Amino acid sequence: MTAVIGIDAGGTSTKGALVDASGTISDRVDLPTDTEAATKTVLDVADRLLDAAGVAGIEVVAVGVGAAGFVDHSAGEVTFSPNSVYGDPHIKAAVEARVSLPVVVDNDANAAVWGERAFGAARGCDHVAMLVIGTGIGSGFILDGAMLRGWTGAGAEFGHVVIDPSGPRCPCGLRGCLEQLASGEAIGRMGREAAQDDPDTLMVELAGSAAQITGPHVAAAAARHDDAAVRVLRRAGRALAIGMSNVVNVFDPQLLVLGGGAVDAGEPFLGVARDELARMTTAQRRRPVRVDLTALGDDAGILGAAALAMDDRKREGKR
Amino acid sequence: MTAVIGIDAGGTSTKGALVDASGTISDRVDLPTDTEAATKTVLDVADRLLDAAGVAGIEVVAVGVGAAGFVDHSAGEVTFSPNSVYGDPHIKAAVEARVSLPVVVDNDANAAVWGERAFGAARGCDHVAMLVIGTGIGSGFILDGAMLRGWTGAGAEFGHVVIDPSGPRCPCGLRGCLEQLASGEAIGRMGREAAQDDPDTLMVELAGSAAQITGPHVAAAAARHDDAAVRVLRRAGRALAIGMSNVVNVFDPQLLVLGGGAVDAGEPFLGVARDELARMTTAQRRRPVRVDLTALGDDAGILGAAALAMDDRKREGKR
Repeated sequence: MTAVIGIDAGGTSTKGALVDASGTISDRVDLPTDTEAATKTVLDVADRLLDAAGVAGIEVVAVGVGAAGFVDHSAGEVTFSPNSVYGDPHIKAAVEARVSLPVVVDNDANAAVWGERAFGAARGCDHVAMLVIGTGIGSGFILDGAMLRGWTGAGAEFGHVVIDPSGPRCPCGLRGCLEQLASGEAIGRMGREAAQDDPDTLMVELAGSAAQITGPHVAAAAARHDDAAVRVLRRAGRALAIGMSNVVNVFDPQLLVLGGGAVDAGEPFLGVARDELARMTTAQRRRPVRVDLTALGDDAGILGAAALAMDDRKREGKR
Repeated sequence: MTAVIGIDAGGTSTKGALVDASGTISDRVDLPTDTEAATKTVLDVADRLLDAAGVAGIEVVAVGVGAAGFVDHSAGEVTFSPNSVYGDPHIKAAVEARVSLPVVVDNDANAAVWGERAFGAARGCDHVAMLVIGTGIGSGFILDGAMLRGWTGAGAEFGHVVIDPSGPRCPCGLRGCLEQLASGEAIGRMGREAAQDDPDTLMVELAGSAAQITGPHVAAAAARHDDAAVRVLRRAGRALAIGMSNVVNVFDPQLLVLGGGAVDAGEPFLGVARDELARMTTAQRRRPVRVDLTALGDDAGILGAAALAMDDRKREGKR
């Protein structure tokens, strides 16, 4: 029996698993990312999964890695990552040297959309857009069956499309990026700001103090009908709608998939975003856009990295 | 000798010509667009060019049409056009019925970028973005050698990417589209607004009255160092830079081509846009982006429509 290793290298944790051709996962590994040497964590995850495969009698035939940040897919190199230092940015070369197998490295959101098409919400679709709304906002786009990577692999960064020039500063260096207005981190920041004006908000009680409010506190307070928290989520939802409308005007996708932790923030966020997007597409006399939530959830990155490695093998004529 | 007919169907005029395989143009036709029946003008231009080809002994083998608006390329249909009524939106069927030749219909900015790659500024480039800054802002994108069209052909509308949610209303139905902040029409509108506050501006003298100021008046006044006009162009240039930065973050192009009449507005517009884009890409630690002006100028649409028709024939195995 054969499998590929799929690894999802995020700013907080690096997760991996063995994945077979049908997308079935086994032998999960989840390590905290060494943010000063993230490549080392990827190597540790790969080592553990190779050991597990050996024990189970599974032959590993390739490795796929999805990494947060700007990734040069052809070189297998992370060229910029706001939350991690990759020490050695040449992940592909480092993993190949360690495992002596074909290695594919791509941006984590690219991996996620590839995973949704292989095994999830976007099966059978050749025009797919995905926004991964976590701490930041990643994006992946499949156009006519092919991944959008750009000339140097630094494309598909829809989270850094500026939608409000007077908006907050982004760690990327710009101001008013979508990521600063609709991500989990943005929701937390807006929650903290709202708590300044409204110290009685449930968000403060849940977080312990205004300064400790994060995205999940906002979502939890909104679920209990806290007005200030609901207002924050509605504001983030309207920003997300602008981002989705921009995706539609640029890519005209068959399907727009939303993933990442922030999709759990519930109706005041996603409901407002869907309603506002519908209003915008109607105003433009565009046909309604199908918006689905991720079918793979937290596993989209692992499964997508694995699917990329599988498809790379197929392209090279090995099965 | 053979040629194809290239037609550029704009909101004001519909231009066409015979184009040979090397991109040489002959027998130009330029008719005012019948905005209540724009398809009829396209047919009139095609008729005249067929007649001219007959006289010159040139065999016409195909027709390419670039049309302003949302175009469904596979159906050859204009689905929405803000400035024209197409009477019969099925341009492809109408032209085919008239000329009994293969007909290709695409968005005019898609045609323009295809023309720049075939005969102009983008020869040899497989990752090309183009913004056509005229009355409105059109856009065309070549990704890995293929045109971005989207699922229904209604993609590549970067002019309707919202970059300022509190910005002016756009005829498309949205608010704060790039087109409302950096197009020729936007420059004219900002000129009229500026003249309200500053009735002594040269723009008023050149236009006859504040209400009659258009983009070219702003550019002419700025060329003569009129402060209010320079401020308008600088503001539009900063908005264009945001649009270009957004293009870079989404597509990571090898080359960004600027076309359309507004590129003649000069340094206070394009210089500011280039400088601000450079500042933004440096802030993001991205590599500098090559930005070139159109090499085909007003002929980009005609030559691009012709190139699309030629490439369609090649794909179908005829030469």
